[in-house]
Amino acid sequence: MFDFWIDGQSGAARSGSLTLPHGTVETPVFMPVGTQATVRTLSPADLKAVGAQIVLANTYHLHVRPGEDVIAQLGGLHKFMAWERPLLTDSGGFQVFSLEGFRKVDEDGVEFQSHVDGGRRKLTPERAIEIQATFGADIAMAFDHVIPGGADEATARDALERTLRWLERCKKKHSELIDGIHDGSQTLWPILQGGTLPALRTESLDRVMELGPWTGIAIGGLSVGEPKDKMYETIDVLEARLPATLPRYLMGVGFPADLVAAVERGVDLFDCVAPTRGGRNGSAFTPEGTLNIRNAAYRTDDGPLDPSCDCETCTTYSRGYLRHLFVAGELLGLRLLSLHNVRYLIRLAAEMRAAIQRGGDAFATWADDWRRRYQHTGVA
Amino acid sequence: MFDFWIDGQSGAARSGSLTLPHGTVETPVFMPVGTQATVRTLSPADLKAVGAQIVLANTYHLHVRPGEDVIAQLGGLHKFMAWERPLLTDSGGFQVFSLEGFRKVDEDGVEFQSHVDGGRRKLTPERAIEIQATFGADIAMAFDHVIPGGADEATARDALERTLRWLERCKKKHSELIDGIHDGSQTLWPILQGGTLPALRTESLDRVMELGPWTGIAIGGLSVGEPKDKMYETIDVLEARLPATLPRYLMGVGFPADLVAAVERGVDLFDCVAPTRGGRNGSAFTPEGTLNIRNAAYRTDDGPLDPSCDCETCTTYSRGYLRHLFVAGELLGLRLLSLHNVRYLIRLAAEMRAAIQRGGDAFATWADDWRRRYQHTGVA
Repeated sequence: MFDFWIDGQSGAARSGSLTLPHGTVETPVFMPVGTQATVRTLSPADLKAVGAQIVLANTYHLHVRPGEDVIAQLGGLHKFMAWERPLLTDSGGFQVFSLEGFRKVDEDGVEFQSHVDGGRRKLTPERAIEIQATFGADIAMAFDHVIPGGADEATARDALERTLRWLERCKKKHSELIDGIHDGSQTLWPILQGGTLPALRTESLDRVMELGPWTGIAIGGLSVGEPKDKMYETIDVLEARLPATLPRYLMGVGFPADLVAAVERGVDLFDCVAPTRGGRNGSAFTPEGTLNIRNAAYRTDDGPLDPSCDCETCTTYSRGYLRHLFVAGELLGLRLLSLHNVRYLIRLAAEMRAAIQRGGDAFATWADDWRRRYQHTGVA
Repeated sequence: MFDFWIDGQSGAARSGSLTLPHGTVETPVFMPVGTQATVRTLSPADLKAVGAQIVLANTYHLHVRPGEDVIAQLGGLHKFMAWERPLLTDSGGFQVFSLEGFRKVDEDGVEFQSHVDGGRRKLTPERAIEIQATFGADIAMAFDHVIPGGADEATARDALERTLRWLERCKKKHSELIDGIHDGSQTLWPILQGGTLPALRTESLDRVMELGPWTGIAIGGLSVGEPKDKMYETIDVLEARLPATLPRYLMGVGFPADLVAAVERGVDLFDCVAPTRGGRNGSAFTPEGTLNIRNAAYRTDDGPLDPSCDCETCTTYSRGYLRHLFVAGELLGLRLLSLHNVRYLIRLAAEMRAAIQRGGDAFATWADDWRRRYQHTGVA
């Protein structure tokens, strides 16, 4: 259980196979985000139809509503949301540090205000792990201290030290609750912090590894507003030091060009709300870039949203009809574009996997071709 | 084409088979309403999965947005909305008489204000028929003068006379546009008016029949706020006089008990937004009555929405999860309850068909049993 096999390499890019209690995930992989135990507008059957292998759900949101007690009584998170394939739960760290409202951080944990009822609540490393154990996802995430994108070194250092102390507490609690991370039904992954400061990032990695062994590792604190080149540099710094045998999860990253750049730098797993949020706004990924279906140019366009796509949206409807759904405020439109965007990222990851498995510089060539096409005519 | 065969009878109730250009419809049948060329929240694949045989779309709404020119350029209504089974279009009469805002009726037609851009537009019998011919639904409806539920006799008489004059104009235009109603690709059905005044209703029927032949006939102006017993009485009056060989479409009726009562009185086709509108409000049809899934009682209920139902919603999710979706404002909830409610009415019609085909008083017995169960424990 929780084995990761690398089955292809092309430069720093790798393809692999991650065994989890609820199934095997082939990497690189994009994980659709089901914040509130549903990938917005999509059903589990839709997710299977677009080839989703693993879905992410959110501990903060599900703790606040409906609460882990309700999910436990309804058979755990897999059964609750009718998703029998692998699940990963985020720890809630990112949310309690990024949502608006009252927040108080001390060594014990974070006191915050529920965005639902305004009530005071507290998450600690132990509580975050307990809640995730109750949910029963295949992969639980450590509870970390997240800092804003442009934080100074002292703030970043302080958060890093706290994240490491919290990681020890998370690991201890997880070991108590789950019968050994390699034999139990859930594994725990740590989250690397350190902003875009290379020295802090490498220190974070080294000290996290000392607390192992781990079955996977996440890169947090990126894609939070920093310049793209800083994000890529940071991944490069980590890539040179990350143990090859661990799957690497880049948190919150999900725009097509970022996926390609990160896979080039050895990343294996991704998640992002971009495909569903964008889909609800009428924005669709295509191989030539993003288009907005509300554009008047599509009024009588009888072609598919993305002619290269095999999803239900692209094989069933015209751009003209999809535009009508958006202009008329019809909910089906939100769903059809979300479906396409999720399928787009899943296919993108699968294409990268295939290119990597061709070996040599096949992936680099593929990535150059992909970028030329994507950036040449991209229109927002 | 447009043949109707009665293949079962039980009292006044009948089952039949209606041949249309895009397929055969088995009656009694419930038609889901796709006002803006989409049954709200549901895809054509969903509609097929729940057994929808025919869908209704709305001429007023589609004329205003996206416009019949767009639909024509995108291949007609079937292709536009990716629904290859039979379609019926309402004429727009009901909408221009019931929507808010400016309205001016004269002998020529109705001038009204678009609810989308506030612009002045005009529908006449000829325009309503032209637009519907452009859409290309299997069944087009005549453009009628609709009056409020409690209108006096003079108003009802005036509207009836105008509706009859307009029907002649509709028929003439339809004959010009469609190559003979029995051989062409679209048929035109008249709409009976006359409020709840028996004398006007029978006169309306007799004079409409004189303008025939027709391939079907609709009963309009009911379920618009009049007492239920008045509605049932009116159908009784008509039933005694309606030619047995014509399919009878009761417009805008779609609550379960009304469907049963109307089938008992010889009605064959129904449409209503109730299942989708109710579904979006969290209201679900069950054999025991309507329930609202937001009810706190369902918080940890691990049973299906309706244990007797075979739809995706009822076979996949718990009431507790569905409640969570509604409480958390997740769009998937709206879709899952809409799906169930449409399936419920389609199954209800299919059950009635089966009972009718058993002959004798089988349907009456079935209806008594159904009512006992539905009314005994019904909770809103």
